[in-house]
Amino acid sequence: MATKEAKAAARARFEGVFDQIADELLAYTKAQGMPAEAIKWYKDSLYYNVPGGKLNRGLSVVDTLEILKGAPLSEDEYFRAALLGWCIELLQGFFLVSDDLMDASITRRGQPCWYRQKAVGNIAINDSFMLEAAIYYLLKKHFRQEKYYVDLLELFHETTFQTTLGQLIDLITADEHHVDLSKFSLEKHHLIVVYKTAFYSFYLPVALAMRVHGIQDESAYKAALDILIPMGEYFQVQDDYLDAYAPPEVLGKIGTDILDNKCSWNVNIALKYGTPEQRKVLDDNYGKKDAESEARVKAIYSEAPISIPERFEKYEKESHDRLTGLINQIDEVKTGLKRDVFVSFLNKVYKRTK
Amino acid sequence: MATKEAKAAARARFEGVFDQIADELLAYTKAQGMPAEAIKWYKDSLYYNVPGGKLNRGLSVVDTLEILKGAPLSEDEYFRAALLGWCIELLQGFFLVSDDLMDASITRRGQPCWYRQKAVGNIAINDSFMLEAAIYYLLKKHFRQEKYYVDLLELFHETTFQTTLGQLIDLITADEHHVDLSKFSLEKHHLIVVYKTAFYSFYLPVALAMRVHGIQDESAYKAALDILIPMGEYFQVQDDYLDAYAPPEVLGKIGTDILDNKCSWNVNIALKYGTPEQRKVLDDNYGKKDAESEARVKAIYSEAPISIPERFEKYEKESHDRLTGLINQIDEVKTGLKRDVFVSFLNKVYKRTK
Repeated sequence: MATKEAKAAARARFEGVFDQIADELLAYTKAQGMPAEAIKWYKDSLYYNVPGGKLNRGLSVVDTLEILKGAPLSEDEYFRAALLGWCIELLQGFFLVSDDLMDASITRRGQPCWYRQKAVGNIAINDSFMLEAAIYYLLKKHFRQEKYYVDLLELFHETTFQTTLGQLIDLITADEHHVDLSKFSLEKHHLIVVYKTAFYSFYLPVALAMRVHGIQDESAYKAALDILIPMGEYFQVQDDYLDAYAPPEVLGKIGTDILDNKCSWNVNIALKYGTPEQRKVLDDNYGKKDAESEARVKAIYSEAPISIPERFEKYEKESHDRLTGLINQIDEVKTGLKRDVFVSFLNKVYKRTK
Repeated sequence: MATKEAKAAARARFEGVFDQIADELLAYTKAQGMPAEAIKWYKDSLYYNVPGGKLNRGLSVVDTLEILKGAPLSEDEYFRAALLGWCIELLQGFFLVSDDLMDASITRRGQPCWYRQKAVGNIAINDSFMLEAAIYYLLKKHFRQEKYYVDLLELFHETTFQTTLGQLIDLITADEHHVDLSKFSLEKHHLIVVYKTAFYSFYLPVALAMRVHGIQDESAYKAALDILIPMGEYFQVQDDYLDAYAPPEVLGKIGTDILDNKCSWNVNIALKYGTPEQRKVLDDNYGKKDAESEARVKAIYSEAPISIPERFEKYEKESHDRLTGLINQIDEVKTGLKRDVFVSFLNKVYKRTK
């Protein structure tokens, strides 16, 4: 596993590419004759909304391509992989800017949400469109001559559609202001996390790197999908678990899923395995905006037969074993894939505490 | 010019294609395992937001392809042209659903804006994304095997980016709640109308039909752009003029540009040619939400030296002459274009009263 210093260096190198990307986008708007205040606005939006996150998705494109190649990337290969990584970060910016508005969120990455900036407000909607539009400008500029250009475009198109489907189910299932636990189920939770998160966070970075590496065999993409979608689901179940169980000082934030009526793994486990008395506690307290109600929900989460910590531990082990089994089934010669791509992903995720 | 009956028949045939398109999109979401309530939500959004407009943009693809071919379209040719037309209407739906939210508009096409529907609200943002995503699903399904597939994708990508740039300038120039006429100018107006309207409403339908017809000569696209962008600007200037000068019973709606602090052609002409006294009337009354202020602005619009009706008449004649000159310069043999494409467009627009 990479040392802390190596990770920081990889991140710094990746971040360096963003300046060039932003410059290219701003040069385009300037060439279109946009007024200075519009160019400044776009610049502010790009820098506020794209680079400040964990960058896991973007960095995964670089890491995956390096593993597939089995040797260090050339300068040019690095740049192009990093550019695709930033395209995922732009896609994520597009989703997060608009999600925050739809959810009326307060902060994102430790700062006020973009739409809450002075003078922004609902203009954030158009700003989110401009983050998405940047993806296709960059892909055309840097990949148009490649045979796999159209594959890259379709990956972004399809992932975008899938993510909006996940967001739709989430929005109509877990309305913050109209709590109705009868809408929840583990099946809904599965659909939400797969569509809203797993496709763009897990499958997309690997599939992009596979295209750049020249993999054309469709069964290789199927194999990658069959591993990465359950891995993304496992990741999101962890996220949900940690929201209620990780100490805030480790997690780096205070979980609010119970207060926010989120359709999380925890509540769906509680709904499925709880007694009628526990169910009543959930109905009376879930999604209420006060600390006492939240505490009552948290208390029953750990009580038998709900027993979330035990069930999570079991789920985590089973997921790990199942994913390891799938990874071992990969035919490296036939598909051109490397098992290490998935092992490395799984190692980053397994038993994480934040 | 087409008779009223012929126009109604063309519209009815075009509308018939939408049901198939909607069915395909809903079948896709069903195949992805989406729950019934999400499929119903998407269906409602598609039917509420896409088909109810004038459909000029969508119909233009069909009309243009027919003129380029010089003969009636086969069933298959018609369907594919109409499908591209509906992709423009989906793009417009994407813009209008979100614009209405950003502008806090009340009605659209004679019914309440989508976001004002019960239970929708800010979910309209995600709904707008799903209208955009539909475009790329449909293009892949119906055009992937064509050599010009990537050209279609790029036309939609570029036009989308341009339209969001126009929307951005408009939003930061003409804030409904902070009137500042010093931000306005005819140059800004030019940029807003070209970017926000002309590219997607005038250039896009023709360029799509040209691709389907097999035109590859880039100079042909340049020639089309050089005519259609000023034509789109002329169209929008008419729109602005009619907002203040057309009788509401002819226009079919009541103009609100003055009340809404719109950066319209009228106010920019008034700012450019008005006396200091007239300027003061504008500063004191433009963008105010009352009928008296609006009436004061309207009064000076017609006074010398502003004299909007006279200036508009002159602008209209000059635009027509300039566009006719450009159309006559087209080398039909070299470019594969037909002048009639543009003449037919101009005839639809010239001296319109609504």
